[in-house]
Amino acid sequence: MLTKVPTLDTTNDPYKWREDQGVLSRCARPCRGMWYDVKRRLPYYWSDIVDGFNYRTFAGTIRIFFVNLLPALAFQLDMNHNTGGFFGVNEALLSSALAAIVFSTLSAQPLTVVGITGLISLFNYTIYDIIKIYDVSIYPQFMVWVGIWAAIWHWAVAITNLCDYMRCITDFSAQTFGLYVGTIYVLKGIEELAVNFYDDQILNGFASAMLAILFYLTIFYLEKLPSTSFARTPVRRFLSDYAYPLATIFWTGFSWFPGNLSYVPWNRIPRTRAFYPTVDRPWVVDFWNLEAKWVFVALPMGFLMMLLFYYDHNVSSLTAQARDFPLKKPAGFHWDFFLLGCTCFVGGVLNIPLPNGLVPQAPVHTDGLTTYDDKPDYIITKDHPSEPVIVRHQMKALKVAEQRISHFVMGIAFVVTMTGPLLVCLSLIPRALLSGVFFTVGLGGIFTNPILVHKIKFLCTDPRFIPSHEPLLKVSRRQVAHYLGWQLLGWACTVAISQTIAAIGFPVLIMALIPLRWKLLPRLFTREELEIMDDMTVTGEVVLASLGGKPELPENKLARIKEEKKHMDPEHGNAGLTGGMGVATGAQA
Amino acid sequence: MLTKVPTLDTTNDPYKWREDQGVLSRCARPCRGMWYDVKRRLPYYWSDIVDGFNYRTFAGTIRIFFVNLLPALAFQLDMNHNTGGFFGVNEALLSSALAAIVFSTLSAQPLTVVGITGLISLFNYTIYDIIKIYDVSIYPQFMVWVGIWAAIWHWAVAITNLCDYMRCITDFSAQTFGLYVGTIYVLKGIEELAVNFYDDQILNGFASAMLAILFYLTIFYLEKLPSTSFARTPVRRFLSDYAYPLATIFWTGFSWFPGNLSYVPWNRIPRTRAFYPTVDRPWVVDFWNLEAKWVFVALPMGFLMMLLFYYDHNVSSLTAQARDFPLKKPAGFHWDFFLLGCTCFVGGVLNIPLPNGLVPQAPVHTDGLTTYDDKPDYIITKDHPSEPVIVRHQMKALKVAEQRISHFVMGIAFVVTMTGPLLVCLSLIPRALLSGVFFTVGLGGIFTNPILVHKIKFLCTDPRFIPSHEPLLKVSRRQVAHYLGWQLLGWACTVAISQTIAAIGFPVLIMALIPLRWKLLPRLFTREELEIMDDMTVTGEVVLASLGGKPELPENKLARIKEEKKHMDPEHGNAGLTGGMGVATGAQA
Repeated sequence: MLTKVPTLDTTNDPYKWREDQGVLSRCARPCRGMWYDVKRRLPYYWSDIVDGFNYRTFAGTIRIFFVNLLPALAFQLDMNHNTGGFFGVNEALLSSALAAIVFSTLSAQPLTVVGITGLISLFNYTIYDIIKIYDVSIYPQFMVWVGIWAAIWHWAVAITNLCDYMRCITDFSAQTFGLYVGTIYVLKGIEELAVNFYDDQILNGFASAMLAILFYLTIFYLEKLPSTSFARTPVRRFLSDYAYPLATIFWTGFSWFPGNLSYVPWNRIPRTRAFYPTVDRPWVVDFWNLEAKWVFVALPMGFLMMLLFYYDHNVSSLTAQARDFPLKKPAGFHWDFFLLGCTCFVGGVLNIPLPNGLVPQAPVHTDGLTTYDDKPDYIITKDHPSEPVIVRHQMKALKVAEQRISHFVMGIAFVVTMTGPLLVCLSLIPRALLSGVFFTVGLGGIFTNPILVHKIKFLCTDPRFIPSHEPLLKVSRRQVAHYLGWQLLGWACTVAISQTIAAIGFPVLIMALIPLRWKLLPRLFTREELEIMDDMTVTGEVVLASLGGKPELPENKLARIKEEKKHMDPEHGNAGLTGGMGVATGAQA
Repeated sequence: MLTKVPTLDTTNDPYKWREDQGVLSRCARPCRGMWYDVKRRLPYYWSDIVDGFNYRTFAGTIRIFFVNLLPALAFQLDMNHNTGGFFGVNEALLSSALAAIVFSTLSAQPLTVVGITGLISLFNYTIYDIIKIYDVSIYPQFMVWVGIWAAIWHWAVAITNLCDYMRCITDFSAQTFGLYVGTIYVLKGIEELAVNFYDDQILNGFASAMLAILFYLTIFYLEKLPSTSFARTPVRRFLSDYAYPLATIFWTGFSWFPGNLSYVPWNRIPRTRAFYPTVDRPWVVDFWNLEAKWVFVALPMGFLMMLLFYYDHNVSSLTAQARDFPLKKPAGFHWDFFLLGCTCFVGGVLNIPLPNGLVPQAPVHTDGLTTYDDKPDYIITKDHPSEPVIVRHQMKALKVAEQRISHFVMGIAFVVTMTGPLLVCLSLIPRALLSGVFFTVGLGGIFTNPILVHKIKFLCTDPRFIPSHEPLLKVSRRQVAHYLGWQLLGWACTVAISQTIAAIGFPVLIMALIPLRWKLLPRLFTREELEIMDDMTVTGEVVLASLGGKPELPENKLARIKEEKKHMDPEHGNAGLTGGMGVATGAQA
């Protein structure tokens, strides 16, 4: 049983800004966001612990542990391969454990799972590629400084309440980012699979390709089960809750089968000495001996890192608290971003990959903690009014175990995994399985991305089979394609830049999608079109409270001002419009 | 445009037997069935040619050519491997070409595609295993005699009108047989895949496993397209019509890619000399020099072969003309079985694998020739009577191009394939692809088998999600399981026996399912239960005309007699029942 917490009443929340207060007013009142975040969330702390003792939390913990551990290992292998062996399993585990323990105990949003993402791997090895041009030996010290600067930037943003602008994120950019992350995961999976072919290990390569595909298919079908009507609900739920452990154990076992399989020289996860860094170095390298010029080169890199985390971590929090989940406890973006600065600092000093919110896994955690009512939805047709002829499967989220225990236990589990015996267990896993994880997480994100499942599907569907109540039918196909074109352009640019040495610039590109949406799109699409095709990513009042309330969309503002103008006399009309625009610009900065 | 043929009026068809006329009366009027088969079908001959000149027939021809060619090659490899290399590609092609040309021009049921099946492969190598115990050198001559005896048995059955008993086949045995055939195909696919690992070709083995899985998935999804609403109808139909050629070309090309793939020493289809037998022998071996004792040992084998074909070929005809297809032209089982005797004779003398009706491919051919109306089915729900909220995809078979051209052109294509240049093309195909074909055809048969998709699924489905109009709900779950138990028992026994040297006995087991259904099942299940769970495989009057009309199911007969008994006075009651039972026994023999 969960404790009965009332949904937070946000009508009188003190954290509000007047419409004309922009960046400067926010900077002038430092720590205001953080203060209210803590104040809002602290009363729930006890219930966050109590609510963790139930079966749903247990199942959710197992699920998120695997969904976090396996990609973390995968990214670490990717980083290891691309940074000349600097980062290893132990760094990945330490970073994940550190992040999980800090965020589960101290954060305002314990549902946001924090760990190692593919983007930090991309970031770290792009910096490596850049540093390599000059002097590869300073890479460890340089990375410390990147971490320190990143921490400082984080703190600055948190203190000046700038996380507020996250409320401006609409599906336009959030979905594009989701598609981008999914694509990167799939590309990483392919790269990781290709590694198995290196040094003429053709046999290992093909066997690995086969294993990765089979692993992917196993999880794909197991996770699909709950939406089918196979067997009874507990069986369906069990198989999907434990899809990752079941598939991991089965296919790891498979790779150890006797017979033809035993001839395969499987690449497995490298085994390292417990609790020591991968390369021969102290946990804290002598970063204070780095030349001053390099310290300052690290500054913009730290800024880019912050920009990445600003988007990545906060979007992760948003999707973990998305509109599908019936959440009751308040969010706290400012405080969490401050905390992320702290883990950046510690992570930087210890030279471990910096953790942040996991985008594709964020909804997985909340989903794992959600109790669903899976009811049949009997459809009574007009022709047979007496009996239902179709039974549809309806999944309704009833309640979410909003607590800190799953996140905390996951952190402890990471610490346990770092001990010797469990590192041995990990080293039994074939490397191919991690490619399978990339495919599962990446394709999972892509196949559920609304760009693909809604807009592209809409354009590709035989028009005769589109139900007449489909909202997109109210927009011309040309405009749907036009809108999609902008999303796919953003996606293509970020994917493309990620393949070059300019990859560290990708957070800028992603962030640029927000002003694009606010400034350009209202000029290209009508208000009605945007209303149908786009929406605010967060609509929950509980979540928006931490960001200063719901913003007014630019197209609505324009329409409102037009409306007001009509009611004015002609001579004041122009002034009204200009003033309105000024406000809009100020508020969205 | 198809010629406008009227649906055959069968009410006054002269081929009828009185109810009390059993086997003996049938034997007493030889050739009666064949005579009426020819008489009934001959008037349609011209339209059979004219109806072949349209796009649907073209597309159907391409599809059936690949669906026939690839498994034929696969079975040939299987046979080749299991008969010490006696049968090869040329024998397979010659046999398929012979069968296709004879049956397309002379048969009464040109829709039934005749070629090489998995069961003949099983049959031939089981005989090889038996002969090997005594003297392997007589295998070629012995096989000729098996073919000759089989031909004689075929003719005997056709002349004595015994094909009539095919009308007694209900879904009970037809579905079990379908599941059995599917299982054998999958097992063959696995065996064939295992061959790629022989002689320590581990790399080739794993690459082949990967290729087979990917080939299977490609065809699986392409063939699923028509029932989705992706793109417009012509695109969907195109991709699914040409799924086999597209997948074959793509994955064959894939195996020739440069890079890591070029390191794989792919096993490919062996290349042989055009128009010559695989082993160094004349097309006609000196079968007249075989010892008399062996000639007579071949007699029962010929009988078993006939028994297999009696079931296999006729069930193939039945499914090619199943109740889903709106057929207009009459069937002709007796005549076709006679013709099958002829191809057995020729095939036997030439020592090529004997062709017969292909079970899993039979409906594929008719399906490929069917024009579907794929309409959206708007469901108006009670809650929103003004607009449809659900659009279901409805596929309705409009008309079938009932003609001889597709079958004939396929035969000619086989002859062309036997020429040198095309044998070279075939030898480019990796062997793994054939395993993929086994999986596609076998799993395709299994996944659409009503035993699996209806009964097992019913038992495995969450009862809450079963629509209330599901007929099986009227039967207790226990009885559904009980009925299923008999089907699965029959399936398990035939699969098990196929793995042993007693495999040539499997036609007996399959045939035994028919009397089991007619004698035992009516005692274990009520009439209502059987009515819901079972049905006659053929219900079309046009098809049944050739078999002497629709039989009365035993449970209906029992019920009718009971009813009649009620209306009689008590003293005549018993006599009526006994007499009735006698008739029933006579009619079903």
